[in-house]
Amino acid sequence: MNDFDQTYLDTAAQPDDDAAATARQGVSPAVIKRLPRYYRYLRELIRQDKLRISSSELSRMMRVTASQIRQDFNCFGGFGQQGYGYNVKYLYVKISEILGVNRRFRAVIVGAGNLGRALGRNSMFAKRGVVPTAMFDVDPALIGQTVGELPVLSMDALEDYLAANPTDIAVLTLPKECAAEAALRLAKSGVHGLWNFTGRELELDEYDVRIENVHLGDSLMTLCYELNLMQNEEK
Amino acid sequence: MNDFDQTYLDTAAQPDDDAAATARQGVSPAVIKRLPRYYRYLRELIRQDKLRISSSELSRMMRVTASQIRQDFNCFGGFGQQGYGYNVKYLYVKISEILGVNRRFRAVIVGAGNLGRALGRNSMFAKRGVVPTAMFDVDPALIGQTVGELPVLSMDALEDYLAANPTDIAVLTLPKECAAEAALRLAKSGVHGLWNFTGRELELDEYDVRIENVHLGDSLMTLCYELNLMQNEEK
Repeated sequence: MNDFDQTYLDTAAQPDDDAAATARQGVSPAVIKRLPRYYRYLRELIRQDKLRISSSELSRMMRVTASQIRQDFNCFGGFGQQGYGYNVKYLYVKISEILGVNRRFRAVIVGAGNLGRALGRNSMFAKRGVVPTAMFDVDPALIGQTVGELPVLSMDALEDYLAANPTDIAVLTLPKECAAEAALRLAKSGVHGLWNFTGRELELDEYDVRIENVHLGDSLMTLCYELNLMQNEEK
Repeated sequence: MNDFDQTYLDTAAQPDDDAAATARQGVSPAVIKRLPRYYRYLRELIRQDKLRISSSELSRMMRVTASQIRQDFNCFGGFGQQGYGYNVKYLYVKISEILGVNRRFRAVIVGAGNLGRALGRNSMFAKRGVVPTAMFDVDPALIGQTVGELPVLSMDALEDYLAANPTDIAVLTLPKECAAEAALRLAKSGVHGLWNFTGRELELDEYDVRIENVHLGDSLMTLCYELNLMQNEEK
């Protein structure tokens, strides 16, 4: 963790009751989808030492209308003085709170293959206040290794580890054939968030679990669709 | 490439003028976003030897309303007989055509770090008719290696390679500081599709380039938002 992250995590360390209250009311998925983008752009502005930004500037950066930005922020009580613009650091802290950056969610990566190892070495977690603590695999050749700073532990030790180290998020990078069983074990051990790269849909309706599916292939195909369209137009 | 993929690529090998014509008309982004999901589910049905499916069955699988599915397919001329259901293989071939699977798009991976190597070994490309041919990096320790079946070549050789090997897609997995320069070189060398994992927005308005940005961190934060909401509700 660098100073930049530490400073803003400290600022945001005390959950704000207002923000918590507004977050509770339920916000449309489209707005929620934009929040991580705001978070990224605001980090970039802070790095550039930009202290204030108007909704029209933010609008140009984000390629979203200024009125959309004002509406989005109003969902959470509104963060700025119109005309005078937004205080970048205040906005960053508020959005961090809504996204739970200050919660310091703890994560494990289940599956120490290529993708798991790539994620295990990635700074993405630290930048978002998420703390990976260990990786798990079934392959004896991998167990005992260290990836970045993460130990690779045996899947046999999963339940014991989670009992001793309460964990919020499991990143599923294991083969899809093993996804359902692993997800069930994680849910039973009290993991409430699954970040699912396996491509397999998970059915855990009996458990209080949130699942975020990543289908990289879908993103690739969206690009292929655009290229196909381009080539058809050239015919 | 396995038999499964080869058979359906062969079936779809001749571009269909009707499909090309409908694709040309412009379809809403929401529909386009669902096409790769249809593709995934139809592959799964074919694997299960399921030959026909009703829109209501497909609807349950996809968690989209049956009427939405009919509307989506109507954007491309409609693929089925209502009541009798859809012919799964026909639907798969048609959607493959719209997505350009039969184009056999050629790809390079620029950046042979952890993520690049994880993608280079991934079967995702072959399953979608995309053919990765090489990886590029600036690190002398990596140049000359082979990742999966892909040679890692020097970035110095990029232009020569692309001139000799026309390439449709570049997967950008290099550090964000290098993203803009690499993207420009690729666009100038006639690459029309960029699959951008760098987290840096690319400005290539002068070039006929389609960009698909992948922000894995945004997906992680969406999960954090849900977990934060869950913990706020428990208070």
